[in-house]
Amino acid sequence: MEIAILLFDRFTALDAVGPYEVLRSTPGAEVKFTAKRSGPVRTDAGSLAITADYALDTVTSPDILVIPGGPGQTALMDDGEILDWVRRVHTHTKWTTSVCTGSLVLAAAGLLKGLRATSHWLALDQLRKYGAEPTAERVVIEGKIITAAGVSAGIDMALTLVAREFNDEIAQAIQLGIEYDPQPPFDAGSPSKAPASIVERLRSRSRFILEG
Amino acid sequence: MEIAILLFDRFTALDAVGPYEVLRSTPGAEVKFTAKRSGPVRTDAGSLAITADYALDTVTSPDILVIPGGPGQTALMDDGEILDWVRRVHTHTKWTTSVCTGSLVLAAAGLLKGLRATSHWLALDQLRKYGAEPTAERVVIEGKIITAAGVSAGIDMALTLVAREFNDEIAQAIQLGIEYDPQPPFDAGSPSKAPASIVERLRSRSRFILEG
Repeated sequence: MEIAILLFDRFTALDAVGPYEVLRSTPGAEVKFTAKRSGPVRTDAGSLAITADYALDTVTSPDILVIPGGPGQTALMDDGEILDWVRRVHTHTKWTTSVCTGSLVLAAAGLLKGLRATSHWLALDQLRKYGAEPTAERVVIEGKIITAAGVSAGIDMALTLVAREFNDEIAQAIQLGIEYDPQPPFDAGSPSKAPASIVERLRSRSRFILEG
Repeated sequence: MEIAILLFDRFTALDAVGPYEVLRSTPGAEVKFTAKRSGPVRTDAGSLAITADYALDTVTSPDILVIPGGPGQTALMDDGEILDWVRRVHTHTKWTTSVCTGSLVLAAAGLLKGLRATSHWLALDQLRKYGAEPTAERVVIEGKIITAAGVSAGIDMALTLVAREFNDEIAQAIQLGIEYDPQPPFDAGSPSKAPASIVERLRSRSRFILEG
């Protein structure tokens, strides 16, 4: 099972590493961190670099594609080489997935037309521009395409994928292995639950307001 | 606020990246991925490498220290250079933290004697050898030392730390930013909740049985 995780300048680390930590433990998993050029790729904050061991043209038919989000997704949406690669490998995948604003890259590649999809809550409305139906759920499955909400939702997405592709027992064993028994100290992880003042503060600073 | 995250061969990626994704967004955060030598450091699965931009001797007084776990922690526990560094920087930190089996490194450095502490559920008993009191809680705070349970617990630990060091609003804003509203598809993330057969399967394969 070949798993390609796309890296790009200014990606968000947890978007990529959440699914990685789940998918790497599936039977026969071979994970390939992939970018335009091989070598270290820096996150949004700049202080973390993950090595892309594979350049785009060396990964042609992954079984699973994971596209993380992050501020760099904006540039990716205008990058013909990336969008062509996404469209091409999508014809081979068993599962094409995104985390956070990675769904906007799938949308820009034309893969979400007429489909329900999710994204980071601040970016959800953007999906409509590309013919997708924004859906404020944590994990949205449409055929072989799975989109996840913001950042940490990639863990839930990957466990859901493992249960579908393999079985519940393998997904549960992986969940227990990563001791994923979440106990956040606050219940502030979605705009419907966080204090309104905090929701508004994040909304007022969002890059999606500037980008329209 | 200088944040040192220790990397070592065969660390577990999510142990490091969970806290990173939370702590990097705190006011004035400067994250330094640190290892014996600077350069890429490979995870347990080998398919992911994070770059250590800093060698041990260049990081002398971080405000926050994060020690992730992973199979490589065993070698670390016999590594005098690492243990000396941990003891030395601990005298400067505001917070010394671990995720998963990273707590065994703190224990081996002699920092957990007489203290309650947690670890990955499969490793919890090992803490007793070093004079710590194993505590099956997700996040355990003892003065300025915070230990977290397995892998994904680092996210909860880091949010708890942010609330203590800064305030609840900053922790909640970060939680909302990473949309940490967990919805795992199963309730199998701890040995008290997972099916007994899966708990036993993981226990029978555990490296801690071999290591005694």
